[in-house]
Amino acid sequence: MPTDTTSPTPPARATPGVVRILGVDPGLRITGFGVIDQCGQSLTYVASGCIRSNEKETLPQRLGTIFSGLRELAEHYQPQQAAVEIVFVNVNSQSTLLLGQARGAGIAALVAAGIDVAEYTALQVKQAVVGNGHADKVQVQHMVRRLLALPGDPSPDAADALACAIAHAHGGQGLGAFATKGLRMRHGRLA
Amino acid sequence: MPTDTTSPTPPARATPGVVRILGVDPGLRITGFGVIDQCGQSLTYVASGCIRSNEKETLPQRLGTIFSGLRELAEHYQPQQAAVEIVFVNVNSQSTLLLGQARGAGIAALVAAGIDVAEYTALQVKQAVVGNGHADKVQVQHMVRRLLALPGDPSPDAADALACAIAHAHGGQGLGAFATKGLRMRHGRLA
Repeated sequence: MPTDTTSPTPPARATPGVVRILGVDPGLRITGFGVIDQCGQSLTYVASGCIRSNEKETLPQRLGTIFSGLRELAEHYQPQQAAVEIVFVNVNSQSTLLLGQARGAGIAALVAAGIDVAEYTALQVKQAVVGNGHADKVQVQHMVRRLLALPGDPSPDAADALACAIAHAHGGQGLGAFATKGLRMRHGRLA
Repeated sequence: MPTDTTSPTPPARATPGVVRILGVDPGLRITGFGVIDQCGQSLTYVASGCIRSNEKETLPQRLGTIFSGLRELAEHYQPQQAAVEIVFVNVNSQSTLLLGQARGAGIAALVAAGIDVAEYTALQVKQAVVGNGHADKVQVQHMVRRLLALPGDPSPDAADALACAIAHAHGGQGLGAFATKGLRMRHGRLA
């Protein structure tokens, strides 16, 4: 299983009437994940953590780690839907290419497991969770903690993935379809 | 099966003493592939073609098409090794991200199938196949045709993938390991 799962015991499979959502914050080094159950307006925390790839391994091996980690999560938690954050770090084209590859390997694992995948920009996630598209990381962590009634702040790696799952639960497929259809660039950033 | 396979009949699985190599030229719209058998210095053409994703589908669906296409190829042809071209189109960061995702989904499919994946830059492929890292597409097609004793020029989509497989057969793991370990950027391009 991927490292850092903060769920002490393996949870039961999703029960009828409950939609299980897997949120993913992809990255080559660290891929954060968060699993929540949605029943009407009520959200319940199931698990969160991250998949770490070994920086000493080759790129294909690292992509294999991300792929098999998400495949295991899909098998274990049996989510019906997944929400993946559209991470966009425009440091240079080489790092953009690496990030894209990590994201592609992760999404492929979810699609291969038969899970519907929606995509959300960081702006959409923050708007859905905090109500402000320009909220900082601490505000996101705080709201994730409140919305899921967690005993403490989630780890930074998992917070964004949980926030993405919450955004999906709040916005449904409409927002995700919007994000997928046409990304716009403005001043070199995703609008 | 992926479209455009130019092999008329399904070939037999790789025989002992023969190394079967799958070359891949990844792209979100078209992913070219070429399968060759290497027995010592002798190379034999097995199959080639491309996987096309539907531009009207969502990004996750298109990544799923690339993933399942390469997984089917891996199951059908049972290659022991794969060689993936390091495509690098620095048009803008958005297209770089899309290309990266296609590449990540493709490599994940190969690694998940237990295939060793090596990576080669276009420069390395051209040097190995034509003897000139700055050869044009027509020269590459011509040499692929000659080296594999094909009756005609391979399709442009498949030629690069076949060239990548030939480069792998010629250079072995050494070149691939070199390409994977440390890519260098010079003037915004992969050196």
